[in-house]
Formats: sequence, structure tokens, C-alpha cells
Amino acid sequence: MKKESLYLKIAKVMEEQIASKTLKLGDKLPSIRTVQKLYNVSLTTVKQAYLELESKSLIEPRAKSGYFVSKASMRKFPLPSVTALKTSAQTKDPEDLISKVFNTLTNDQITQFSLGVPDKSLLPIAKLNKGVISVVQRLADGGTSYEPVQGNLNLRRSIAKWSYVLEGTLTEDDIVTTSGAMNAIFNCLMAVTKPGDTVAIESPVYFGILQIIKSLGLKAIEIPTHPITGVDLEAIKKVLPRLNACCFISNFSNPLGCMMPEEHKKELVRMLTEYDIPLIEDDLYGNLFFGATRPKPCKAFDEAGIVMWCGSVSKTLAPGYRVGWVAPGKYKEKIIRQKLLQTISTPTLYQEVIADFLEHGRYDHHLRTIRSKLYTNCLKYQGAIEAYFPHNTKISQPQGGFMLWLELDQKIDTAELYDRALQQNISYAPGRVFSQYNQYNNCMRLNFALGWNTKLENDLKRLGKIVKAAI
Amino acid sequence: MKKESLYLKIAKVMEEQIASKTLKLGDKLPSIRTVQKLYNVSLTTVKQAYLELESKSLIEPRAKSGYFVSKASMRKFPLPSVTALKTSAQTKDPEDLISKVFNTLTNDQITQFSLGVPDKSLLPIAKLNKGVISVVQRLADGGTSYEPVQGNLNLRRSIAKWSYVLEGTLTEDDIVTTSGAMNAIFNCLMAVTKPGDTVAIESPVYFGILQIIKSLGLKAIEIPTHPITGVDLEAIKKVLPRLNACCFISNFSNPLGCMMPEEHKKELVRMLTEYDIPLIEDDLYGNLFFGATRPKPCKAFDEAGIVMWCGSVSKTLAPGYRVGWVAPGKYKEKIIRQKLLQTISTPTLYQEVIADFLEHGRYDHHLRTIRSKLYTNCLKYQGAIEAYFPHNTKISQPQGGFMLWLELDQKIDTAELYDRALQQNISYAPGRVFSQYNQYNNCMRLNFALGWNTKLENDLKRLGKIVKAAI
Repeated sequence: MKKESLYLKIAKVMEEQIASKTLKLGDKLPSIRTVQKLYNVSLTTVKQAYLELESKSLIEPRAKSGYFVSKASMRKFPLPSVTALKTSAQTKDPEDLISKVFNTLTNDQITQFSLGVPDKSLLPIAKLNKGVISVVQRLADGGTSYEPVQGNLNLRRSIAKWSYVLEGTLTEDDIVTTSGAMNAIFNCLMAVTKPGDTVAIESPVYFGILQIIKSLGLKAIEIPTHPITGVDLEAIKKVLPRLNACCFISNFSNPLGCMMPEEHKKELVRMLTEYDIPLIEDDLYGNLFFGATRPKPCKAFDEAGIVMWCGSVSKTLAPGYRVGWVAPGKYKEKIIRQKLLQTISTPTLYQEVIADFLEHGRYDHHLRTIRSKLYTNCLKYQGAIEAYFPHNTKISQPQGGFMLWLELDQKIDTAELYDRALQQNISYAPGRVFSQYNQYNNCMRLNFALGWNTKLENDLKRLGKIVKAAI
Repeated sequence: MKKESLYLKIAKVMEEQIASKTLKLGDKLPSIRTVQKLYNVSLTTVKQAYLELESKSLIEPRAKSGYFVSKASMRKFPLPSVTALKTSAQTKDPEDLISKVFNTLTNDQITQFSLGVPDKSLLPIAKLNKGVISVVQRLADGGTSYEPVQGNLNLRRSIAKWSYVLEGTLTEDDIVTTSGAMNAIFNCLMAVTKPGDTVAIESPVYFGILQIIKSLGLKAIEIPTHPITGVDLEAIKKVLPRLNACCFISNFSNPLGCMMPEEHKKELVRMLTEYDIPLIEDDLYGNLFFGATRPKPCKAFDEAGIVMWCGSVSKTLAPGYRVGWVAPGKYKEKIIRQKLLQTISTPTLYQEVIADFLEHGRYDHHLRTIRSKLYTNCLKYQGAIEAYFPHNTKISQPQGGFMLWLELDQKIDTAELYDRALQQNISYAPGRVFSQYNQYNNCMRLNFALGWNTKLENDLKRLGKIVKAAI
């Protein structure tokens, strides 16, 4: 038996014990040494098995006392279903619905479960402001000059250093900065596709990606996506010869919160390399992991330079700064050309501020804080939803990020329900906007990067009531 | 005779007197009252005639003493020639040449006659920095939140107020902010064209516009452009039924520095309205006029909402801020949708800083200073070129902005000459990059928004020598 599958086998055994309630909520797991002797394996293998369980939120470490069965493992509600691969079906444009949701954003009376950004109470605003003032006083031209098209050198350097998850394979020269990750994806698609081309995406998928694809005259193939393990590789294989590009959120996808296992990432990169198909990898949630370590991106397994690894600080630090980047592999020159013609350069100031923040350990510190808050929020949301929503609700099991995906009773149309929720000052993202087809009508996405308090719990309770009333 | 052409007739008479040296350099023109009695017309008509002459740099006002024949009227060198309309010719991609020029930008040993931005000695950097610090301390979220997709409200309000040249027809609601004017143009073309469509542009044309057009799979028709009066309306008429959009710099075009006369602007808007063809009007140099008043944009004559009026502060205040905007007329929703999917929003901070700068009279003050410096530089450059360049040099007569266009001996290839100039630390923009065809090989564009000093004059002298040596 291979070493890789050995740790998975041990993890599987324990996962079954948790599922069968042999191991109950709050139970302490056997120590790593005990398991090592039991299976006659290395310490590393047992640690890997525990990391695997932890990455699935089945167990959690407590300082100096070992691992315990976590609350998240005690699911009352099942996972959302996986849709089938459609290669011909009627599309339905959700643009009006998206506008409707976006139009609520400036109303601060509304609880914004619909937003795709963390609440400002979770952001280190005072520290960032200090950074702005110090940078503007330091820059000789105050940021009035164009910087090189490829982007700010200090930021590119910091990003390269911060990409430890790629084991030092990135240098400042491999990175191009952009106006946020959305702009990175737009640039990537402009660079590697032409109108009429076909792009594989997740399903359900972040609606922004669908809108870019439509705007550029591209066709999208929605790949069935599992709420835990992400895109279905078998489905990708079936359509592989027809693809001109793939665009996936490999870690903690929006809206499902799924994470592709490392083996899937390797296999995906292998398949795409064989066909020389570029993979636009949107890894903007990767640093918001609930497990023990930062999951690797597909980029870590990319030897041919086909992976265009996109990131930003919009989900962790400052959405409004519009600071993002891409490590575009062999497509670098094309990306730089796109950036030049679309906007010439990006502003220096915020790039320098973020570079400082990354450089001086402040980012590390902030990420530890926000990750722990998000994980706690995730458990609290799940608890509230289990308490207040109908019994036939299905709920995702995010392993990072800050999105929950709910699948409700088949009778529910969350687009219709939206107006009723809005009357009660509650906004969420209706499921239908996450597909080009007429599906996910009974689903909704909730943002859990809000400050948890009694009002928020009460809002979830009221949302549950609205759903119950609609059945 | 119509009143409009009356002032033009008077101006024409005086222009001929200047050309024939009946009125010599430094001569005082007759007073406005004298001319009024002479022609038996209104004071306004005479003033208009003088404004017309002033806008052509033929005369200049001196405080409390009237108008004088200006130095700029005493041209030794003729104007560059106008090319013919080509509707089928082999295109030649200047991309390598553009990269070559851009690669010199970070080397501050090189005199950058090639740049399209003002030197930082002409910019109010200290005042802008003060603005940054005051804004970041004022913003509740330090600019970390997304702002409405349409753009910062204070900036849109200030731009609307500043658009006095449009006589109060614009409100904050009509404006969408962008990442500079280049990004505005990219957005406009994305919004109103689809691959395969045809766009009319100037010739010679700013190469950035050519690159956007190529990247979006559009076809460009280069309209013959007169160095004083801009695009040839008769040529546009010929191709009108084939056009899907026009994209022109109406005031002080880059590279020619020409300005469309008001009558041409009206007629252009009338023609395009009839065919419902959108006009992307890039008016980013409009505030840098050498005449008495800010020339109107085509937008001032747009009743149907077909003109998408683009502007920015990149040519006047802070290129690196990437603050631009568009008043997209009836295409507003399309522009907002494009901005949303390309980048979601633009950073708040710099928009607020620019709004403050516009609001509190600082912009007005700064523009007066920079305009006077640019006009002086323009005359000094022209003088130096007349002194140091070959006698068969042709030279443009910009009425604003900061670009000079030189047409050299037919034997000269400015792309070849470029390497020799670079060896002497001089960079200019070779003519060939300003067309999709193999033309303007004997032309070059020079930026005169640099600090004038002996070294700069000497650089022009050395450049003149290089040209002389090549004949």
C-alpha cells in the first residue's frame, strides 16, 4: 500500500467512527503515539491523517490537550446535491436579479448575507490607514507617476515571498499585479481565449465569472461540483477536447466552500497539461483555511506553466483597495499586454501599503485572527440554521472562506422569496444567479464574514421563518 | 452672411495679413472697437475673431495692452502632410516597437521625449499628498469597502460641476468613474461594439487606441486628420454606413495636437446621430488649451446621448492615480455593467483626493500655471527645432496639450534612428507606432511637458544632429 493512501485509510476509519457516533461530539481522539503503535506507521502518517480529518472540520485541535471531535462533525442536515453535466440546455440570464441584489448594498439597514466581502469589523482598518500615511510620505512622487506595467516591485516581491505554499518556485518576475482578482480573471480570459471559445467552470459558480464569460462572447460548460471535493474530474475528462480554458476556485470555492483534494489538483493539472489548456485558478480564499495548513493551489503542481494563479487581498484585508495579482505562467507577456491596453498601470499607493503589510508580519497576525473568527462564525451559522430552518434543508460544509450554500425544499424559489426577505431588511444571494441555466432556484448563498451577535442570530431566525412560511 | 461665418471672415483677413507679414511678429493688432467700426459688426463678433486667431496661436493677448502677433505665428517650417483615406492596405503591427520604447521608461538617465505624461516637476505633488493624508483620516472605513460601481459620489459631483464647458447639462448621475481615460475607452468599446465591428479613428492615432481595437477583434478605419482642424468630415461621410463606432480625441489630439473647430464638432455629432453611431470622445487634453477659453467637446452638441465623453487627470495632475471618467450618454447602463465585471469598483481614496482638488479651486489654479508653462515650452521647442533640425522638417502647430509631431525627410526611418538616439540617452515615439499601416516612418512625436533647461535644449540639438546625419 502506498504511503499516501495509508494516512487516508486511517482517516477513513476514524471518519466512520465519527459518523457512526462511536466517537461522539467532544470526545478526545487517541494520541498520535497511540495510533502510530496501533497501525505500526510513522508519526508523520498519523499527523497527516489527523490533518485530513481536521481539514474536513471533523476534529479540532485544542492547545496542549490533543484532538477532539468537533461540533461541525455533528451534522443534522445533509450536504447539498451535485447536479449533472449539461452540455445543451436553455440558458437563463440572471442579470436583473444580480442588479437587484447589488442595489441593496448602500443601504446599511439591511443585513447583507448577500455580500462577497468581509464586514469591516473584521478588517484592520486603523493599521492600514497608518500604512497609507507612511507610504505617501515616503514616495518621492507621491504615487503620481505610472509604475511599470507589470506592477509594483515591492508588492510583487512580497507576494512571491508569501507564496511559501508554492515552495519558493515563484519570484517577483513571475507576478503581474491587477485591480483585484476579478480583474485578474478578466485579463486572463482576454489573454487566452477568443470569442466563441469554451471555458469550463464550477456549478454552482460565482456569478461574476459567468458575466465575464458572457461579455467576452465565450461559452461556459458547467462542471458538476461536489460540496466537499470540488469539480468532478470525470466530467472534465468528458469535455476536455472541447475546452479552450478552465476557470476554477480550487480552495474554498464561492459559493460551495469546497476544496479540491491535492490528488485532484495534481490530476487536473496533468490532464490540462496534456491538452495544453490554460487553467485560470482563482485562489483568493486560500489563506482563509479552517484546517491546520494552507492548502496548496493547483499552481504548485504546474510544471508546464499552464496555470494562471490569481489572488487578491479583497477577501482578507481591503476589498476597496482593488489590489490583486496573477502568476500567469507562460502567458505572462499576454497578461502584461492586456493590462497595458486596458489601464496602463495600477495605482502605486495601495500596492505599497499591502506590500508593507505582508512584509512585516502584520498579514500573518491578521490572518490568524480572521480565520479563527470565520471558523467560529461558520459553526454558529450552521447551528442557527439547524435550529431555525426547515428539517429538509441541506447545507454545505465549507473548509475555509466565508460562504455557506443552502439547498431548500424543492417548492422554494429563493428569487421570489428575496423580496419578502428584503422587506425584513435581510439580503442573501439567490441560487439562480450561480448558473447560466434555470437551476438552483431553491438554493441561497449566505456570507458568514459578519460580526456575530444576537441581532445576526435573530436575522437568521427570521430568514428561517420566511423559508418555513413559503413551504 | 451668417453671423457665425462673419467672425471667421474677419479672422481670415487678419490671418492672411499675418501670413503675408503685413502684420509682423510683435505688432499690435487694431483695438476691438476699431475693428468693430471698420466692419460694422458687434463687439462679440470681433472678440470671436480674435479668439479664433488666438486659438491658432497666431496672436496673443497681453494684460491691459491688447493683442499682439505672436512668435508662434512666424513659422519657418510647414505643417505635416495629411494622408489619404485607405480602406484596404496591408497592416503592420508596431507592437515590438512600442515595447522597445516602453522598456526605456524606468531609466531616468534618458530624456523621455517619448512619454505621454507631464514631467513630475509640473505636478502639484505636495498638495496632492496633503490631500491623501486628510482623506484617509476622514474616511470611516479608510477606503477598504467597495464603493458603488458607478464610482465615487463626491468625484462625480465635482466632475459635473467642472463641466461648465457643457453649460450645466451634466449631473453626477451622468458620470461613471474609471481607472484613467484609457480604461474609459476600453470600457466604451467593450460596451458598444462586438468582434468584427468597425471603428473610425484619427490618423496618425494614439497607439493605445489601436491596441485596444486589435485586442477586441475590431477593425479600424484611419480617417485622414488635418494638423490644425482634426478629422476630415468628408472622409468620415464616405465610410459612415460601415461604422459601428467612432473614437476621436476632439481637442488637442495625440499626436497631432489638432482641435476640431466647433462647426466640425456640431456636424460630426449631427452625422453620427443620424446613423445612431456612438462617438467615444477622448477629451483628456481639453483643459490644456493655449487659447483664451476651454474648447467645447462634441458632447456639448449631443442631444441624442450618442457621445461618450471620456476624461481623466492623467495629463494634468497625477497619471499614477488612475482616475478617469466617462459621461456615456445613453450607454450608461452598459458601461456600469462593464465596470462591474471587469473590476467591481475603483479605489475610493484617490477619487476623493481628486474631488477635493477640483472642488476647492486648487485645480483651476494649477491648470493656469501648467497651461502657461506648456505654451512657453511649445514655443521653445519649436524655436529649437527650427534652429537645429534640417530645413525640410515639417512641424505641427498644437493649440493645446503637450505633443509635437515632426515629419522629416522621406529618407529618414525614425524606427531605425531610434537606436542611435537611445545610445545618446534620448527617447522619442517613432511615427510608425501611430498607424496600423506601414506609414509615418519618417515622423516622430515629442513630448514638451518636460522642465525646460539648457540640457533639454541641448538634447533637442543632439536629436537634430542625429536626424541631419541620417539624411
